Amino acid sequence: MIYTLHYAPDNASLIIRLALEELGQPYRTALVDRRARAQDSAAYRALNPAGLIPVLETPDGPVSETAAILLWLSERHGALAPAPGDSARGAFLKWLFFTSNTLHADLRIAFYPDRYAPGGEAALLAGIKARLASHFALLEAECGRHDWLGGEGVSGLDLYLAPLMRWAQIYGAGPRWFDAARYPRLMAMAGALENRASVAAAIRAEGLGRAPFTAPQPCDPPEGSAL
Amino acid sequence: MIYTLHYAPDNASLIIRLALEELGQPYRTALVDRRARAQDSAAYRALNPAGLIPVLETPDGPVSETAAILLWLSERHGALAPAPGDSARGAFLKWLFFTSNTLHADLRIAFYPDRYAPGGEAALLAGIKARLASHFALLEAECGRHDWLGGEGVSGLDLYLAPLMRWAQIYGAGPRWFDAARYPRLMAMAGALENRASVAAAIRAEGLGRAPFTAPQPCDPPEGSAL
Repeated sequence: MIYTLHYAPDNASLIIRLALEELGQPYRTALVDRRARAQDSAAYRALNPAGLIPVLETPDGPVSETAAILLWLSERHGALAPAPGDSARGAFLKWLFFTSNTLHADLRIAFYPDRYAPGGEAALLAGIKARLASHFALLEAECGRHDWLGGEGVSGLDLYLAPLMRWAQIYGAGPRWFDAARYPRLMAMAGALENRASVAAAIRAEGLGRAPFTAPQPCDPPEGSAL
Repeated sequence: MIYTLHYAPDNASLIIRLALEELGQPYRTALVDRRARAQDSAAYRALNPAGLIPVLETPDGPVSETAAILLWLSERHGALAPAPGDSARGAFLKWLFFTSNTLHADLRIAFYPDRYAPGGEAALLAGIKARLASHFALLEAECGRHDWLGGEGVSGLDLYLAPLMRWAQIYGAGPRWFDAARYPRLMAMAGALENRASVAAAIRAEGLGRAPFTAPQPCDPPEGSAL
């Protein structure tokens, strides 16, 4: 059985596509038609009751939650993360969870404030912008200090952060709210990824443009819709 | 070297205390004086730049983020979670990340809305209450269907969820906003934990009262302050 990645263009599934490409694992994709809100269908909710994209179908059943899939793939196929028992495992897990439960969670609020504070979006966006600047600054301070964040190789955390920085530049919280110049190490890490075959494959599959992390434009995908 | 748990009473460090007790691992505690905002001190920020409680000092250095510590401890000492390679690992990781990045993240918003939407707290709390009811319902539907969530033994996810349910009952989002009766399986899981030595130890150390999950009262700790 090969993996099936349930995806929508330029959604969090992009992170898992990059991981599968980096790991050289064969996979099929199944488009989730966001225009038809297919993520709310009974069939999709059977794969992920939370209705979020992505889901990866595996021999052990469907796995969802971006960071959970990243960790599971790295445990199954090696690379992408310090292995259990490695002395760097704790620090890696710390920043993976931080990225998931703080940076990514707050970015979702910036992109969909109406789902959190209907009628109070402006106050929420102001608070979230300040929080996000702090989160990115913490990661910037770590970037390049570890093999698994802006290091020589490519880690699951690099693959997670580069798309988050893409989306911060083109979505949410008002025009030009995200100042990429404040995070030069993170942007250098993301720029280096743009030379990799994994990113080239994702650009083709999801219509991400020439420089999806350092000069991002809204996607123009061959199938499906980001929103 | 034994572990050192940097804690404040009835903070997320409670979850790690319970895990260390369940694993039978010796540990020291170091009180973080929240009244003096010790979590913002240079010494504490050197352990966790994000300034959040808990930190666990380990032979591999400090580890923070509640779910990262839970996962790290379970990898190091066995039990509490399906091991890497186990066929249940993917599903466990999925719900662990969901609990961390969705349930716990939204509960923090309910407890500290002023940190997210200064001046717009009321709209945010209304939206968050609806989201939290949905999150708890998803976990209720899974509870008892897996060894690692309301199963025969005790999992890291059980130890994570029971304190979250405690805090939902006594903190945040207005009086009686959380209706525990809607989640009978989760409450039964949490009630069963109250018979364990790990919870008795935490009650003594943090002043949590007789039934900290099923009939919770604000803590009355022998040292320190929850807020």
